[in-house]
Amino acid sequence: MNGNKSIKIISSGIYLPKAVSSAEIEEKYGLEQGWCERYSGVSSRHHVTFESIGYMGARAIENALEKSKMQLQDIDLIISAGASYDYPLPNQASVIKSELKNGLDCEVGCIDIDTTCLSFVSAFDMASKILDGKQYKNIIVVSVESASKGLSSNRTETITLFGDGAAAFIFTYDDTASSFLIKSSLKTFAEGMSYTIIKGGGMLNHFRDNPYDEDLFAFEMNGIQLLKIAKKKMPDFISAFFSDLEIKFDDVNVIIPHQASKMGLALFKNMFELRPNQFKENLSNKGNCIAASIPILLHEIIEKNELERGDLCLLLGTSAGFSIGSLLFKF
Amino acid sequence: MNGNKSIKIISSGIYLPKAVSSAEIEEKYGLEQGWCERYSGVSSRHHVTFESIGYMGARAIENALEKSKMQLQDIDLIISAGASYDYPLPNQASVIKSELKNGLDCEVGCIDIDTTCLSFVSAFDMASKILDGKQYKNIIVVSVESASKGLSSNRTETITLFGDGAAAFIFTYDDTASSFLIKSSLKTFAEGMSYTIIKGGGMLNHFRDNPYDEDLFAFEMNGIQLLKIAKKKMPDFISAFFSDLEIKFDDVNVIIPHQASKMGLALFKNMFELRPNQFKENLSNKGNCIAASIPILLHEIIEKNELERGDLCLLLGTSAGFSIGSLLFKF
Repeated sequence: MNGNKSIKIISSGIYLPKAVSSAEIEEKYGLEQGWCERYSGVSSRHHVTFESIGYMGARAIENALEKSKMQLQDIDLIISAGASYDYPLPNQASVIKSELKNGLDCEVGCIDIDTTCLSFVSAFDMASKILDGKQYKNIIVVSVESASKGLSSNRTETITLFGDGAAAFIFTYDDTASSFLIKSSLKTFAEGMSYTIIKGGGMLNHFRDNPYDEDLFAFEMNGIQLLKIAKKKMPDFISAFFSDLEIKFDDVNVIIPHQASKMGLALFKNMFELRPNQFKENLSNKGNCIAASIPILLHEIIEKNELERGDLCLLLGTSAGFSIGSLLFKF
Repeated sequence: MNGNKSIKIISSGIYLPKAVSSAEIEEKYGLEQGWCERYSGVSSRHHVTFESIGYMGARAIENALEKSKMQLQDIDLIISAGASYDYPLPNQASVIKSELKNGLDCEVGCIDIDTTCLSFVSAFDMASKILDGKQYKNIIVVSVESASKGLSSNRTETITLFGDGAAAFIFTYDDTASSFLIKSSLKTFAEGMSYTIIKGGGMLNHFRDNPYDEDLFAFEMNGIQLLKIAKKKMPDFISAFFSDLEIKFDDVNVIIPHQASKMGLALFKNMFELRPNQFKENLSNKGNCIAASIPILLHEIIEKNELERGDLCLLLGTSAGFSIGSLLFKF
């Protein structure tokens, strides 16, 4: 627990498809003007037009590589950390690699990690455990989500909430140990397994046996049950997380929460005493980008210099499963 | 590379659905008697009837727990390592947990790792990096595959080849360091990305835009290209793997290869000089169980005492992506 793991963010890049305003959604679905923002807190989000997940992931990685002046050949592992995918098989990381400019010129291994909305947090944690400065010097974690295609027009609350996008981070083993992971935790509460679900399209409700039905094959969330379980489990989770650390919750400079929903963020803000500027959000102009939410927001906060070297940063969120996860690191 | 990671297999369990003989398949699809075995080398495989992936995974885990006299509460992480899934969302590990007898009574975190056929090998590797004897003392890796539903009746070569099943392993941090991981490697060759693929059912060929078509939504493999790339890349992969080890390929007591295909196994046997009983197979009565092939075979070999404490074991295989992976450990 106290064995801090050396890991340093070298650079990050993002890719965002076309922005879609709430007014456009309201017009398309015949909703009252202002409904989207009032209901979901989202005024604009990005939705794919021509982009595949592989395409967005490759562009985000190239962006991060360019900024770090590194080559793909310097990378020892690519982890794709997300819930959506271009093909059921092969894994998404291999598809992203095949779309990279120099993807065919190197042999870097490709792995997928999926804890739905917490996938980036889990992959960051895994990267810290894998990086050893020898076999693994640099690891790319890329989170790409294309939620918009899997939404049902009958569930306008999901259409206004979800956005698409990609973020890639390059992590390196930090010799100086000035940047490190302090602690991570993931807890899964199986009683909430079905609160967030896509029922059709896997082996259980195979497409072969189930003609297309927008509702069966679309994303489904039981918002009330999700808020209930989050409210019940979050306080204990947070106090357990900090119980064996010298760092207190209040010492954290920046909190990057998953942008689950307006109500989810409000719940958290009511639950804890937060300092001004401690708690970050981008829900209003990105929506909930599933696993890409946390890294897109982290990227934005770093770009705006709102997170500085030496700062303590807490990634925190809930995910389908139902899970709560967090990761505390020194940037 | 030489920092051996303590990890010990405590126990393992499997679940296999109903066996299906080649004669049954030949009758069902109007194939000449003896075709299946001659073509694929598979005389019998298991195919699900009522079982979901969650169901098979839960039973395999309970089997492993029972044998180890451990409780689910003793486990610090559940990793589901495979390519097929009950639902597109949430992740499969959470679904498996929800099907476990005492799944609701504990908060153990649930993560998915996917490198298709090599998922168990990747998860074993990750488990070795996560286990620290403190936060993580025991990890379950479960590989469950239900390939049979995703096969096209137009591709009889895939119907005879693939089987369903589950295997669960309990790994522990080994204080005595008598059991450990010596080295692992994963290389992805993106030029082979599309050689093994399920084209429909992800975001790129979404159900919404593509009426059901058995071929689009079924597993597709370009066997000739796969053999070609494996033949080209495997020798260099193996010699690079052993190049910085004192252990030689010939010192390995047991090789557990992925049961990719009759031709794939033959290729490997022709490529290397193997000692009698060094190279293990179960293709003829299990078929290719995707990521579950390696752990089901490993489980069988341990049960038959063909792998003994102190022995060196090499897991090795190819996977969709296209990747080659291997892991050398002391049992």
